[in-house]
Amino acid sequence: MREISGFSNPIVKRARSLRDKKFRRAERLFLAEGLRILTEALDAGAAPHMLWFAPESAAHPLVQRLITATESADGEVFITSPDIMGKLSGKDNPQAVIGVYPERWTLLKDVDRASADIWIVAQALRDPGNLGTILRTGDAVGAGGLILIDDCTDPFSVEAVRASMGALFTQHIVQARWEEFVPWLRNGPDDGRRGQLIGTSLNTAMDYQEPRYTSPAFLMVGNEAQGLPRDYEAACDLLVKMPMLGKADSLNAAVATAVMAYELLNQKRRA
Amino acid sequence: MREISGFSNPIVKRARSLRDKKFRRAERLFLAEGLRILTEALDAGAAPHMLWFAPESAAHPLVQRLITATESADGEVFITSPDIMGKLSGKDNPQAVIGVYPERWTLLKDVDRASADIWIVAQALRDPGNLGTILRTGDAVGAGGLILIDDCTDPFSVEAVRASMGALFTQHIVQARWEEFVPWLRNGPDDGRRGQLIGTSLNTAMDYQEPRYTSPAFLMVGNEAQGLPRDYEAACDLLVKMPMLGKADSLNAAVATAVMAYELLNQKRRA
Repeated sequence: MREISGFSNPIVKRARSLRDKKFRRAERLFLAEGLRILTEALDAGAAPHMLWFAPESAAHPLVQRLITATESADGEVFITSPDIMGKLSGKDNPQAVIGVYPERWTLLKDVDRASADIWIVAQALRDPGNLGTILRTGDAVGAGGLILIDDCTDPFSVEAVRASMGALFTQHIVQARWEEFVPWLRNGPDDGRRGQLIGTSLNTAMDYQEPRYTSPAFLMVGNEAQGLPRDYEAACDLLVKMPMLGKADSLNAAVATAVMAYELLNQKRRA
Repeated sequence: MREISGFSNPIVKRARSLRDKKFRRAERLFLAEGLRILTEALDAGAAPHMLWFAPESAAHPLVQRLITATESADGEVFITSPDIMGKLSGKDNPQAVIGVYPERWTLLKDVDRASADIWIVAQALRDPGNLGTILRTGDAVGAGGLILIDDCTDPFSVEAVRASMGALFTQHIVQARWEEFVPWLRNGPDDGRRGQLIGTSLNTAMDYQEPRYTSPAFLMVGNEAQGLPRDYEAACDLLVKMPMLGKADSLNAAVATAVMAYELLNQKRRA
């Protein structure tokens, strides 16, 4: 354990720089904040590469557990001032602990689709809160992971990590081009479990409770403003929509994903 | 229609000040941004008190419609520079139109509970994105409105208005203390439609798909970090929970509300 007290210490600067996507990509590291998220990460088998905390948190048993786990995994532990914690977190009122972790990407070719009944596919999703919330929902419904298509917001941004509430550490995160994803999906093992691609769309009359879905279900959600491109919709096995009784014509992307994901889970529970 | 070009014009300063809660409360006015939201507002019968746009948007038919409607309703129309639009919206890339509207509060005593099957009750909700998203979901499921209990985030903040995507103008918004709300709920008209108070909670074994809900359903969601206080839970007619298959023990508040609200709607659709 080392004590760091200077704002200009290069280790502080390096950790702080991970708030910026450019440095995350260069270092392949990201920041996660808060006892709840770091403890969930540890429970999922991920110890931080660096652990930061202020003296007033040192006695907390969960902080002690994180210190032990970080040191056992050859990570670095830094005790520092509340001011530097604030600088790292970008908030006046920082969380008790901040961890630096290696980015957790899974390659598409390594995805074992049969390992889960639900996979979520996001296309050009722009809002980090939505992305993190979708990961959190994925964890709750037992999804295998999130496959990001086209130019999505960074799943390792501070905002996305925070909204995921730790699900970032339990869900596989995959980045793929559409031109890779579709052949991968369609050329899977010929065992009747290649999977069904389900899009939520305004361009359909099919109510989302009408189909009997099969596993693994690949649930696709489009960009917040545009929805899915028409040719992506055309490639889906099923297009469905939620009933909309009001004036608005669409739901928030994370909400639509959750309503669909719970329908998939509920059908599975009844089966 | 007036042209305004100076950053220091008091009308610009006044509109800009509405980004701050203190000035919203003093003026009882709020800002809404974007053609989609302003058009939804108009369709719901709300013309802006002030309408702002930049010259390059003037030819758009929806902008023309908003100008006509604002002037017919004795509102003020301002044509201004993209820079001032940016200043009003706080963004480099502002929306085409910005409107100033009177705050839209409904008093609890004026709520006609029989006018909708679903009402959403939020307790100490802190995130403006969650609040706006809940309004948007409420619109979609045909809810009557959102009742805010305890210290919730301001429904008229720029972030909440944006996340509501116009639902702010179709949903009744009510603020009430718990000590007012419970007697109001329990002393409603004795016609078998006083309503059922349903809490989502971790402190129950009851699956959310198990009960047969009755209308009007008052769906209560608690604070993002704490959930509902135990005595509030004790006052509910039903406590239910969503299945959680993963590591996390809760869903995002707006997601949990939506999953429950669609269950209520789906039961109604089947009935």
